[in-house]
Amino acid sequence: MRYELHYWPTIQGRGEFIRLALEEAGADYVDVGNGSEEDGLGMPVMETYLNGEATPFPPFALPFLKAGDLIVSHVANILQFLGPRLGLAPEDEALRLWAHGLQLTLADLVTEAHDIHHPIGSSLYYEDQKTEAKRRAEGFIKERIPKFLDYFEHVLEDNPKGDRYLVGDSLSYVDLSLFQIVSGLRYALPKAMQRIEADMPKVVDLVSRVAQRPNIKAYLASDRRLPFSENGIFRHYPELDEV
Amino acid sequence: MRYELHYWPTIQGRGEFIRLALEEAGADYVDVGNGSEEDGLGMPVMETYLNGEATPFPPFALPFLKAGDLIVSHVANILQFLGPRLGLAPEDEALRLWAHGLQLTLADLVTEAHDIHHPIGSSLYYEDQKTEAKRRAEGFIKERIPKFLDYFEHVLEDNPKGDRYLVGDSLSYVDLSLFQIVSGLRYALPKAMQRIEADMPKVVDLVSRVAQRPNIKAYLASDRRLPFSENGIFRHYPELDEV
Repeated sequence: MRYELHYWPTIQGRGEFIRLALEEAGADYVDVGNGSEEDGLGMPVMETYLNGEATPFPPFALPFLKAGDLIVSHVANILQFLGPRLGLAPEDEALRLWAHGLQLTLADLVTEAHDIHHPIGSSLYYEDQKTEAKRRAEGFIKERIPKFLDYFEHVLEDNPKGDRYLVGDSLSYVDLSLFQIVSGLRYALPKAMQRIEADMPKVVDLVSRVAQRPNIKAYLASDRRLPFSENGIFRHYPELDEV
Repeated sequence: MRYELHYWPTIQGRGEFIRLALEEAGADYVDVGNGSEEDGLGMPVMETYLNGEATPFPPFALPFLKAGDLIVSHVANILQFLGPRLGLAPEDEALRLWAHGLQLTLADLVTEAHDIHHPIGSSLYYEDQKTEAKRRAEGFIKERIPKFLDYFEHVLEDNPKGDRYLVGDSLSYVDLSLFQIVSGLRYALPKAMQRIEADMPKVVDLVSRVAQRPNIKAYLASDRRLPFSENGIFRHYPELDEV
């Protein structure tokens, strides 16, 4: 099965959570958004799905995954779908529901991480909401990042199968997503994260182990791994970081 | 099976999406948050799950559902779990993925509807972010509500099985959730919604039909249906509505 990932070109964004799962599993996939129009890829083909021309089931937004005739939208939905197919989800129903719940919690954190630079509206420039962004970032750093990361620290600590993975005793897509979020937060808010991470040894250890997995390590070193930037979710605006 | 819904007492909030599904199906359920401590219900018992005392799989936040030994957190995850059990989800895998994607789009709309009155932070009072709220509400009314509702209008219009339901040819949990969101937006922003709805005949028709279903109608008239209020997601602050 050759999977098609449909997502904006040039940024990691929400597509990165899907890329990491596909790369870890060594899956066959096409990154449609970053492909060229000459090859029948790129924005034009994605547009035909978003505008309903190519399907009666148009996604509201990117990313979406195409797997044969199936179209799956939203990161958590895509990962829930891919997980069992890529060997990145537990077998047990209770644990699958648990993994999906954790992923949806991470999705909320991603939205909050985005909204620190766009608290008033996504269609406005950052420059037009800088004052509000500063205020929102303060609460995010002071209350929200610690609350979320402390939760995942406890999930690891209380995992009946040991503290190496978030779900069960082997790697799942949730571990990969936590890796991506911690990496993004480190890029966006390095000072705040340095302080906060000191209290989260199990999260930090998991993130390090994910980065060292052979397929992930090779991916991160490749040019398929797009850089973090100020066009993505995690943006480094030094004025939003703590002093 | 007696389901346990764990959610904050006195407000509809995110718990309402679950209540509507349980009520439509005539399911046996306990609304734990609104129960009394004398009966072993209320906040104390929910706390034991949130703090990890009662389970190694503690939800990050409310609502969560308990079904026998299973714990399921996040509205979309709960509805995906309940859907097939309550006869409120399609049989077909492609349509189930579609339904879950639609529900996750609705979840994003709910978050945005909440953030118009709390654009800077959930832990701050509305009064401390009124100016920012006014600005965020303007963009929400002008761009976001129309974009979301127009999307669902097209989903109905392009449904290969007809325009009566969002997914396939029968009621699903997604229809119930759209009903709740439109009801909430009407409560919060009556003037804006009156104008916007004029362009969304199929959405409006679906919402009316949901309200008239016997079990939903009886539920809405019962005292189990808590009122909308300024403690919930959809808050009526007239200054945020359009003039």
